[in-house]
Amino acid sequence: MRSGANGSSSRLIGQQPPTLLTAGVGLFAEAAAEQGSPVHQVDWRPPMAGTEADLATVQADPRRQPANAEALRRIVGTEALLVDVLPAEVALQLDRAEFLHAGPPIEWERASGPLRGALLGAAALEGGVDQPEQAEQLFASGTGYTLQPCHHRSAVGPMAGVVSSSMWLFVVQDPATGRQTYCSLNEGLGKVLRYGAYSPDVLDRLRWMSAVLGPLLQTAVRRHGPVDLKAILAQMLQMGDEAHNRNRAGTLMLLRELLPDLIDSGRPAAEVAEAVRFIAGNDHFFLNLAMPACKLTLDAARDLPGSSVLVAMARNGTDFGIQLSGTGDEWFTGPAQLADGLFLGSYGPDDANPDIGDSAITETAGLGGFAMAAAPAIVRFVGGEVSDALAASRRMYEITVGEHPMYSIPVLDFRGCPTGIDATLVVRTQILPQINTGMAGRVAGVGQVGAGLVTPPAEIFPKALAALAARVPVR
Amino acid sequence: MRSGANGSSSRLIGQQPPTLLTAGVGLFAEAAAEQGSPVHQVDWRPPMAGTEADLATVQADPRRQPANAEALRRIVGTEALLVDVLPAEVALQLDRAEFLHAGPPIEWERASGPLRGALLGAAALEGGVDQPEQAEQLFASGTGYTLQPCHHRSAVGPMAGVVSSSMWLFVVQDPATGRQTYCSLNEGLGKVLRYGAYSPDVLDRLRWMSAVLGPLLQTAVRRHGPVDLKAILAQMLQMGDEAHNRNRAGTLMLLRELLPDLIDSGRPAAEVAEAVRFIAGNDHFFLNLAMPACKLTLDAARDLPGSSVLVAMARNGTDFGIQLSGTGDEWFTGPAQLADGLFLGSYGPDDANPDIGDSAITETAGLGGFAMAAAPAIVRFVGGEVSDALAASRRMYEITVGEHPMYSIPVLDFRGCPTGIDATLVVRTQILPQINTGMAGRVAGVGQVGAGLVTPPAEIFPKALAALAARVPVR
Repeated sequence: MRSGANGSSSRLIGQQPPTLLTAGVGLFAEAAAEQGSPVHQVDWRPPMAGTEADLATVQADPRRQPANAEALRRIVGTEALLVDVLPAEVALQLDRAEFLHAGPPIEWERASGPLRGALLGAAALEGGVDQPEQAEQLFASGTGYTLQPCHHRSAVGPMAGVVSSSMWLFVVQDPATGRQTYCSLNEGLGKVLRYGAYSPDVLDRLRWMSAVLGPLLQTAVRRHGPVDLKAILAQMLQMGDEAHNRNRAGTLMLLRELLPDLIDSGRPAAEVAEAVRFIAGNDHFFLNLAMPACKLTLDAARDLPGSSVLVAMARNGTDFGIQLSGTGDEWFTGPAQLADGLFLGSYGPDDANPDIGDSAITETAGLGGFAMAAAPAIVRFVGGEVSDALAASRRMYEITVGEHPMYSIPVLDFRGCPTGIDATLVVRTQILPQINTGMAGRVAGVGQVGAGLVTPPAEIFPKALAALAARVPVR
Repeated sequence: MRSGANGSSSRLIGQQPPTLLTAGVGLFAEAAAEQGSPVHQVDWRPPMAGTEADLATVQADPRRQPANAEALRRIVGTEALLVDVLPAEVALQLDRAEFLHAGPPIEWERASGPLRGALLGAAALEGGVDQPEQAEQLFASGTGYTLQPCHHRSAVGPMAGVVSSSMWLFVVQDPATGRQTYCSLNEGLGKVLRYGAYSPDVLDRLRWMSAVLGPLLQTAVRRHGPVDLKAILAQMLQMGDEAHNRNRAGTLMLLRELLPDLIDSGRPAAEVAEAVRFIAGNDHFFLNLAMPACKLTLDAARDLPGSSVLVAMARNGTDFGIQLSGTGDEWFTGPAQLADGLFLGSYGPDDANPDIGDSAITETAGLGGFAMAAAPAIVRFVGGEVSDALAASRRMYEITVGEHPMYSIPVLDFRGCPTGIDATLVVRTQILPQINTGMAGRVAGVGQVGAGLVTPPAEIFPKALAALAARVPVR
């Protein structure tokens, strides 16, 4: 019951008035303070219920600390270069009956509205059906079309995250190993496929992206040579972006990087101008590069025996799933939550689908909600106060293994982003990872209805911990 | 000796323990606190010495408060649109023997190294001499070449701020009145004319800017139509720029705005690509638009009888000058100070020239040093800690008339920038305007040596106040 706050922790009790060190129930601290005792309150809560044995097992595993340190080393040390832009049929050998989606695995029956809407739209885009609705039976039967998580094909997709064979993908590479990750091109906000809209204008835009934008970007990237995405991400944090729901500076820096090669591409000036207008008019364009860059660095940290570090957080609109480095490709899932935030136009909480998308890969890598202190203006998009954004970043240091040496937050005196979510720390502190996110309408076809803040369902962390504990060798 | 901090100012002394309200010497507050008295310290200092009579006169002037309110209304309400790009000989009818410079008026004899260097380079650029050094006699004689402040020709120039007839200028317009302001195109950092360098590569770059960049920007701006500079400035503050020494986001947003019209300009793709590379490679390019935009709004607040609001702060490398709304075109000057900051390469304080440039027009309009809390990453360029940047912005609210409704600082909970410097508040509080600035080498030809923080010389504020007091009608 002593405090070292005044630097006198070596003095004997009784030489000065005792200072109470309180934790947990606030009433006790308040009562003590009212009675005149100096109080130093710390934020401590008991571990999640029923996790004591698994926590003890995992924490006693001598492999855990070095494995987590190695995971962090790989996450922060792996390079991420944009090296090409290719159609999914070439990059991933997707055929026209194969469809990728965000989050952990799911069947049509359990798929939410926005995921269904995006899949119907993609099916029509690929020409297998004339009208999107006709694809429903082909997905539902489980025989016509196949569904697979993006994550199982080295890809990530924002919101519904649907990828089909004709869509063009960014190709991001780690030059040290040649490992690659992939992500589609960003369509903009509002009524777009990834938010579950599939009207003719949505499909027309996707066709133009495949016919014009993709090939043009391919030409520019190949002329330019590899683009260092982590260097851009580092700059973004100095410019008010957190790389999940603010990608303004990132989009402009990508454009700046590729512009001379876009202009000199030999393609018609009108086509280049149209592409530049499209990219420049979409502040979220860089999100689809931030995501595969994050996945690439996290993939490098997979499969380290004993490591309790998260290598993926992803949502399919029904389930929220996580993967740990030390538990291979197993997903630990629970119900996706509703975000709390701001709504577009006349939409309200009843219109929103639960949390959806692979974009929480940014938080898994220390960006997004973890870096919100670098992007205080984001509260105008996701809600809350600036002080909440700062507090969110500060809180995330409690559940992460370390700080990112390249990604720093100016207003926190250039402290590195909290990086490497440790499932044992989440279980021990009950502090859940802070994610900021767009909100899709829950009805297929609606599109975006808002943006806000959300966390994973708490129960998936004890599940993951139990699986990790089960893998600890008996000594 | 009472405090209203606890909301009990109507109670009688003696009903509760007295709270000390202390100001000035900190030792007194500390001593009182050690004796157990609650202390509420406010930051109060006596007015600048010898100013009591003038302060009393000016503060008693019934015109002052409404005039200052009107000044603020004009500063924040005036629009600033980029409408054209023109050579100085067209925009300002400058002939080849006329040269504009930053700051208040000055003659060659008193001109500092970097201003001399820039003038010599400009003379060679205009072809009046073969070698820059040959122009010295023409400037010194006062008969060959004429010198005039940019401010006297509705222009502003960063650092030496030299404008000569062949240089192209941005034309910024207030659509309500047609009033215009002008500024040259930014050359980049390092060895450039505005920092006093005048070697052949510096002049070659200026020739390319006049032959290629200026005409290309003219075509793009005319195709595009007016560009709303205040909208860009407002966005910049959400993206880590303060529009004086950080203009990264602003430069990218200008590029985004003009790109389609640059690409579609009909000019050769290689020329467009070269211009885009030049602009994209210079994070300070937008400074030369921020400055005339600020001047335009401040010019709208000139000549309001009784107003103690500053409408210009400018330095010529020797003198620091200010102008007040209520005192017409009169300059109040004192010695320019040395900035405190970070140096490039092996340069040190002995290499730096005193403060120079019209760029303090950004601070005069509530940006730059006044908005540093929006740009914490700037401390890596100008020195100091992030907490200093936040404190600087907060302190400026003490000497300004109000807050800018369009320019807001996210990390201060979107508080508007402190805007409209009131000379009476500066005199009364002794708080000097905070400016951040580049540092020129003091020897002609050197170029930039660093960047840092600086204030005006204190003595110019009592001078300005006395002039304002002398204009108060005798009742």
